[in-house]
Amino acid sequence: MEHSFIAWAKQRAARLPRVKLGIGDDCALLGNDSLDSAQSDLAITTDSLCDGTHFILAECGSQAAGRKLMAVNLSDLASMAATPLSVFLSLCLPRENAGDVAAGVFEGVYELADKYRVAISGGDTNVWNGPLVIHMTALGKVASGGSWLRSGAVAGDAIVVTGKLGGSILGKHLAFEPRLEIAAELHQLGVVTAATDISDGLGIDLLNVTVASKCGAEVWLDQVPISDEAILCSQKTGRTPLEHALGDGEDFELLLSVPQANLTRLPKEILGVPLTRIGTFVTRTGLWSKDKTGVKQLAPRGYVHGQNRD
Amino acid sequence: MEHSFIAWAKQRAARLPRVKLGIGDDCALLGNDSLDSAQSDLAITTDSLCDGTHFILAECGSQAAGRKLMAVNLSDLASMAATPLSVFLSLCLPRENAGDVAAGVFEGVYELADKYRVAISGGDTNVWNGPLVIHMTALGKVASGGSWLRSGAVAGDAIVVTGKLGGSILGKHLAFEPRLEIAAELHQLGVVTAATDISDGLGIDLLNVTVASKCGAEVWLDQVPISDEAILCSQKTGRTPLEHALGDGEDFELLLSVPQANLTRLPKEILGVPLTRIGTFVTRTGLWSKDKTGVKQLAPRGYVHGQNRD
Repeated sequence: MEHSFIAWAKQRAARLPRVKLGIGDDCALLGNDSLDSAQSDLAITTDSLCDGTHFILAECGSQAAGRKLMAVNLSDLASMAATPLSVFLSLCLPRENAGDVAAGVFEGVYELADKYRVAISGGDTNVWNGPLVIHMTALGKVASGGSWLRSGAVAGDAIVVTGKLGGSILGKHLAFEPRLEIAAELHQLGVVTAATDISDGLGIDLLNVTVASKCGAEVWLDQVPISDEAILCSQKTGRTPLEHALGDGEDFELLLSVPQANLTRLPKEILGVPLTRIGTFVTRTGLWSKDKTGVKQLAPRGYVHGQNRD
Repeated sequence: MEHSFIAWAKQRAARLPRVKLGIGDDCALLGNDSLDSAQSDLAITTDSLCDGTHFILAECGSQAAGRKLMAVNLSDLASMAATPLSVFLSLCLPRENAGDVAAGVFEGVYELADKYRVAISGGDTNVWNGPLVIHMTALGKVASGGSWLRSGAVAGDAIVVTGKLGGSILGKHLAFEPRLEIAAELHQLGVVTAATDISDGLGIDLLNVTVASKCGAEVWLDQVPISDEAILCSQKTGRTPLEHALGDGEDFELLLSVPQANLTRLPKEILGVPLTRIGTFVTRTGLWSKDKTGVKQLAPRGYVHGQNRD
């Protein structure tokens, strides 16, 4: 299986942008010129998705799993304001239909590689007796000094999110759009000082930013943008739509810090996706909620891979 | 598990060389200065190891699995004449003892990261209901134009291997030394024109080089260096020690092309490891064996991941 799949994948990847040396040797080579010489740093991210945890192969098929893998990695690059250059795909394939499953994963990756003009530059294939595990490492370039880190927020900065939150389990977690274009536009505007993507849930991801930035965050509960899917979930779970928006994982929206002075330059929406201020970073560490009843401690409900929700 | 493991790993990795931004954000950042500006290309390799296929967790433990993962990736960098800079570790952990298993894998990776002064710069951890799958992407730098490719062999060049071959299943596949130091010395000598590492078996890996180089190879059967382990295996399998040396996978020795004019400058051994000429690249495509009975076609026996040995 391996050799014929690699030959096929190499041919298919040839229609995408290429790195100096792509699929077929012991390593790929990324030419230093890809990084515009001394101008750019390289951003690197890596994610694994497992059948039964991050997707259900029997329900969604391998192409949707591959698309999700690519989208998850591109989302990490977007949250660092990096432009994707090249991805590496590694597959642990179930013995049954290994070739078809591999081709499906590749096509899912290809869809977004083609859309965002990213090279598929290498990888590894294995057939084993376990369920499907798919893995990707993505490389992107970011203008020197221009990367968004989780540690860049300062008390007083606005907390801003893209899109609407919650209920991604109903489908968005497989079909979401990585926010690369929004990140590129915001990076050009120079309004953002810290960022992450919402993968584990707004509460947990916001807490991560506050810990890295050595501050706290006050969330305006009535401003959190709630998705229709969060409302649908709520009808089944008995939890409120807001709880879903705060706690559900895999929204893959951007969570941003925007200094007050930059707020007037922050667009209300980009490419039809709303940008919503949902609170303020504060000096008092921890997460806090603010509504008409006052300020209370906010538990970071959210999804941590491999554990139960909250 | 995830957060405490990441915090522990971040602290442990701090004793190693570091990249511009390591564990803890959405991406790592590799500064352009790591690549000596316009002088260096970046070599990238990626490999996954699965419990039951590449190691047996219950027999070897997770530290040995982690060490093997690191060694396999470093071997790929060695075969491109690249110096390792940074690795990314991704874990799909069985639910039982996930924390201990993760720490063991990390320690195995750390052993070689420390020895070869490589940064552990990021990764991903997941707990799932399947067996252990461990994944690594490794980045290395290689002097511009100086990388060894599989495609560099020319008819007339000598075929050279490091070490002795066969029987790695008896232990070497877990404990082998990636040939980074040998590669660095040979690269400095400027004697090698093509390379790969012997992962699928001498026959298959040699065939890969000939296909990439659009030539053939004639193997002098009486010159193939046979390991003691190949002899031991032979006593159990009924196959000859030579068959084991030609066909067994996971030796992770270097397979090199050395032009005739460079042979006088090729050391007989480096760091106690023999360098042995085992034949010649030839114009006639395919693999050929030569012994006292004459020249015959040679079947590329070897181990292809996920298939049976043939």
